[in-house]
Amino acid sequence: MIKAGIVGGTGYTGVELLRLLAQHPEVELAAITSRKEAGMPVAEMFPSLRGRVSLAFTTPEEAPLKSCDVVFFATPNGIAMQQTRELLEAGVKVIDLAADFRIKDVAEWSKWYGMEHACPELVAEAVYGLPEINRAAIKQARLIANPGCYPTAVQLGFLPLVEAGVIDTSGLVADCKSGVSGAGRKAETHILYAEATDSFKAYAVAGHRHLPEIRQGLARMAGHDVGLTFVPHLTPMIRGIHATLYGKLKKDVDLQALYEKRYAGEYFVDVMPPKSHPETRSVRAINTCRIAVHRPQGGDTVVVLSVIDNLVKGAAGQAVQNMNLLFDLPEQMGLTQIAVSP
Amino acid sequence: MIKAGIVGGTGYTGVELLRLLAQHPEVELAAITSRKEAGMPVAEMFPSLRGRVSLAFTTPEEAPLKSCDVVFFATPNGIAMQQTRELLEAGVKVIDLAADFRIKDVAEWSKWYGMEHACPELVAEAVYGLPEINRAAIKQARLIANPGCYPTAVQLGFLPLVEAGVIDTSGLVADCKSGVSGAGRKAETHILYAEATDSFKAYAVAGHRHLPEIRQGLARMAGHDVGLTFVPHLTPMIRGIHATLYGKLKKDVDLQALYEKRYAGEYFVDVMPPKSHPETRSVRAINTCRIAVHRPQGGDTVVVLSVIDNLVKGAAGQAVQNMNLLFDLPEQMGLTQIAVSP
Amino acid sequence: MIKAGIVGGTGYTGVELLRLLAQHPEVELAAITSRKEAGMPVAEMFPSLRGRVSLAFTTPEEAPLKSCDVVFFATPNGIAMQQTRELLEAGVKVIDLAADFRIKDVAEWSKWYGMEHACPELVAEAVYGLPEINRAAIKQARLIANPGCYPTAVQLGFLPLVEAGVIDTSGLVADCKSGVSGAGRKAETHILYAEATDSFKAYAVAGHRHLPEIRQGLARMAGHDVGLTFVPHLTPMIRGIHATLYGKLKKDVDLQALYEKRYAGEYFVDVMPPKSHPETRSVRAINTCRIAVHRPQGGDTVVVLSVIDNLVKGAAGQAVQNMNLLFDLPEQMGLTQIAVSP
Amino acid sequence: MIKAGIVGGTGYTGVELLRLLAQHPEVELAAITSRKEAGMPVAEMFPSLRGRVSLAFTTPEEAPLKSCDVVFFATPNGIAMQQTRELLEAGVKVIDLAADFRIKDVAEWSKWYGMEHACPELVAEAVYGLPEINRAAIKQARLIANPGCYPTAVQLGFLPLVEAGVIDTSGLVADCKSGVSGAGRKAETHILYAEATDSFKAYAVAGHRHLPEIRQGLARMAGHDVGLTFVPHLTPMIRGIHATLYGKLKKDVDLQALYEKRYAGEYFVDVMPPKSHPETRSVRAINTCRIAVHRPQGGDTVVVLSVIDNLVKGAAGQAVQNMNLLFDLPEQMGLTQIAVSP
Repeated sequence: MIKAGIVGGTGYTGVELLRLLAQHPEVELAAITSRKEAGMPVAEMFPSLRGRVSLAFTTPEEAPLKSCDVVFFATPNGIAMQQTRELLEAGVKVIDLAADFRIKDVAEWSKWYGMEHACPELVAEAVYGLPEINRAAIKQARLIANPGCYPTAVQLGFLPLVEAGVIDTSGLVADCKSGVSGAGRKAETHILYAEATDSFKAYAVAGHRHLPEIRQGLARMAGHDVGLTFVPHLTPMIRGIHATLYGKLKKDVDLQALYEKRYAGEYFVDVMPPKSHPETRSVRAINTCRIAVHRPQGGDTVVVLSVIDNLVKGAAGQAVQNMNLLFDLPEQMGLTQIAVSP
Repeated sequence: MIKAGIVGGTGYTGVELLRLLAQHPEVELAAITSRKEAGMPVAEMFPSLRGRVSLAFTTPEEAPLKSCDVVFFATPNGIAMQQTRELLEAGVKVIDLAADFRIKDVAEWSKWYGMEHACPELVAEAVYGLPEINRAAIKQARLIANPGCYPTAVQLGFLPLVEAGVIDTSGLVADCKSGVSGAGRKAETHILYAEATDSFKAYAVAGHRHLPEIRQGLARMAGHDVGLTFVPHLTPMIRGIHATLYGKLKKDVDLQALYEKRYAGEYFVDVMPPKSHPETRSVRAINTCRIAVHRPQGGDTVVVLSVIDNLVKGAAGQAVQNMNLLFDLPEQMGLTQIAVSP
Repeated sequence: MIKAGIVGGTGYTGVELLRLLAQHPEVELAAITSRKEAGMPVAEMFPSLRGRVSLAFTTPEEAPLKSCDVVFFATPNGIAMQQTRELLEAGVKVIDLAADFRIKDVAEWSKWYGMEHACPELVAEAVYGLPEINRAAIKQARLIANPGCYPTAVQLGFLPLVEAGVIDTSGLVADCKSGVSGAGRKAETHILYAEATDSFKAYAVAGHRHLPEIRQGLARMAGHDVGLTFVPHLTPMIRGIHATLYGKLKKDVDLQALYEKRYAGEYFVDVMPPKSHPETRSVRAINTCRIAVHRPQGGDTVVVLSVIDNLVKGAAGQAVQNMNLLFDLPEQMGLTQIAVSP
Repeated sequence: MIKAGIVGGTGYTGVELLRLLAQHPEVELAAITSRKEAGMPVAEMFPSLRGRVSLAFTTPEEAPLKSCDVVFFATPNGIAMQQTRELLEAGVKVIDLAADFRIKDVAEWSKWYGMEHACPELVAEAVYGLPEINRAAIKQARLIANPGCYPTAVQLGFLPLVEAGVIDTSGLVADCKSGVSGAGRKAETHILYAEATDSFKAYAVAGHRHLPEIRQGLARMAGHDVGLTFVPHLTPMIRGIHATLYGKLKKDVDLQALYEKRYAGEYFVDVMPPKSHPETRSVRAINTCRIAVHRPQGGDTVVVLSVIDNLVKGAAGQAVQNMNLLFDLPEQMGLTQIAVSP
């Protein structure tokens, strides 16, 4: 059994990790920390876990993190970078669900995240945990930078086109829609029920922190910089990201075949039949990304629709997928639930 | 492996059965029928099942129902009663998720359901499938009348009080709130999104079909007829029933202890700590009923809060629980998911 | 023109007052205060008011409240009682939308609201602003205690039965469901979108602050104390209260006629035809209470369904109705919008 | 008083017209037709209109349409074109809220709408009712083609850029999100509450009927054909359209000034301050289009955010605005409500 610890377990990413790890046949939950809620049983804060998770929150100091096999950081940005070195030195593998190790250019990271980086050398070591691109490296890693939610949906959506070099990468558009859980479990006015329901809006059009992460990923696929306009929107639903991606084709190509071939054998990527419109609820609570590719009116604009559950493939599920790779377990272990629909 | 068939699989109960049965380690899905959709792959209608259910709908005539070990009817009322005899005679066990076999008084049934009963003698044989009350009988049965959603939440909520004889059963009130999936997957105007969202209303105050079923169940527990006012309400959520139950105490009693004792050992009933307010999302997509019992201001009115997922403990999950009992499997097999929250 | 000021305008009650007062033909908005947001234009916080309200928030000290004709308190409990005397002495009429002046028994008030009362003598003077009961007194008043949202729905629902003495008032039940805006516009976790949507729960079953207010109102109608169990529930919708009321009839009576007669001439109470089920959206954004009265199966239990918009008839709209009475304007002036549906 | 008739009043566009016309000071509702519901009082089907609209539905034959001053068609496509000539000849002005007269190229219309046109010559005469572009012509017209909901949001969003010739019109992208009421009040499975809530999806990526209408409008502004990719999405909210528009700038220009100047004096278009993100609820139930214009990271991509209420500025409200112009009334008469928020 893998002993797993979670640092910062009171957010939506934390409770989703608990849901998945508690059902994982090879994991033993060893510790979950929250300075603020120390002493409170996890199932008292999250009644959905009653009878299934008996742990209580502890302070980070009291938690037996160093004797874990793997520690997940489900913390705000800037925490994992403070504590990772010590854990790695103790032989613990680390999966950071925040952004601390995602951006290779540390100066760029500092610009977007508004703080200095505490351990730039670990950024260099960290492996970006998108298994469909980086599987081999992940298996060898001891530190995983778990991708952001938007970056997962957008990169998986663009990947076949960019890798194959069939799209003009100078003017890509990613129009993305996220459920409200993506904003976290923080007491903030703008995500109150009466503010966020029955309404729709864009946000951060001037620049969202996931922009450099997506650009970095696409550039790596392309072999050169890309031009990307990324507009996120807040959608009145709990979970789900729907990325609608636009680009100009540079050459005629069988798009459906391209996607099916690229993702053949990928358990967590479902290329849907031509003319499909994936809906976010078809991946509710599961680790799958469903993709459909379109070429409206046979023109040279390609439209890709890519949906994930932001808390699963966009966070906790992908982290478990990475953990499986780190410990040489079957990649889908503990992640074979069927989507809850309706 | 148990070979299972589903008759009428295009509704919410049907797709939920598929979700649960496809994850059940001892079940092989053998057939699913829909006259209207015959030929269509199930996963085309329900993309949440892509990659997990490869069956296509077939006509009832073509489906190998008689070679199944168990057949579930997820049909409108009045269908199962036409086809059950033949299946039973072929040695197939039958679980009816509709109302055909729930009411022992056939005349009463006809009054509420507006049709003559096709096989009254099977009504007498059928076992009411509420395991927390009827477990022993269910294990011996070949025909199960799976309870309605409201009746499950209300009966489990009132059970300890009525069995113990501590409540005045002449003036019970069950004020119940249901998610919209309880109305089924029918193209009807009143359950359109733009009709049912951001609004709340009672319905069928004059009399709902679940009233005689609940009254029958409570009367059986009490040993005599009961007086019950039952008001269902349509709530803008997908899944979930919240029953708020009211009654007058006849004697002073430790309500919390009464409930905990009655449900000790029941895997699917969670008696919450004193002062709790269970929320429906804490049972989203699982087979658990969570209950809290209150005595406001220490008066003689008891208030019970009982929540279930109408599609799981109120329908498909309870059917699988009954199937496990029929085939002598562990009762919780295939039903150990954790609630999806948020 | 009536010069109106609002103290505490950043909550839902405040913005709703602004919406209604800005459309009122006889009102001039003179001031709106918020210590925290002083200097910010109202329409910047509430873009729905762009082009229609040009005021900015000011501190209470700078606001010309004493030169107003009427001041509305849309503040948390405990503020109005500090500032009302001074305004009354300056000849300003005061309408408090919080609870400071609602409960005549000051000791009882202190018990439920957890503070000492700052001006008990004004409690005695204040008129409870439910026009359908208190119209004559309201017209003569200078200080109005605007009723709570639940109390409005429940009292209007029970009123004809209690006044007529046809119901057993010892065992009344009020099962109430409220939209989330009823919890206010506070940054609190439990009313976040991802917490409150797609779920349903009761709260405060042990005792809610509106209980003594409702009991006081019913007792006044009845001429003696009443026994009431009141259970509020949080419903995933923005606006609306649905009160489902239960009582035992003491004598046979034509319920429909009783209600129609009592509310004949009341512009803001709509007694629906027999067998109706009012839905909250039918009163969305308007000052109407719609009521239906039922007697299921002809038994002796009466079930009343009463719906209002908690922000309008349950708060800001009723306050404007009271203002109209205070200033001898037509009672429905500025309140004749049609409900927004769907 | 203007005598107004409505043909086909049982859909959302119909009930919204009723809401607006019943509050219009210069309109008398003379008739509303529905063959299917003939005889039923309008307020029985739509309780939100109780006490405000006393009309009953009548058959088209019995309705005094020819004695009306104006008739609104709130019918499915293909109806208005059958009945308009007769009304025009009787001196009645006609406003068609369906698509019968929107597309000048009748062959193109037939291709998209799947039927032959009944009166091509009236297509030529009809004036496209987008007042912000066509005001002068509307005032002289007798037949108005009221624009579609998406076309209103998209055209108003792109208008200043295209008119000024500062944008490359060969590769425009309109990523649009609509509330579910946009799909109408039809009993269809895909818009059931339990299908459409808590989920998000694109639809009709291959080609939506509003595409030729938008292309025609943009071409008229540009003076030449344009290249447009239009992807509509279904969003779990009742009302609202959010258009996110993308284009490449051809020259450097002060975008904010361009928009403010173009829409100066337009009562129903609100150009928001720089960096704004309009939300659909800020126009809930009103006839306003709010627009914000962005240039992310100072690049050459312009992003325009344009929101309307699909039932008001996208349908019934714009129809009333057109009626005001037709009858030389103040353009905003009856349309000055404030948005309902929250």
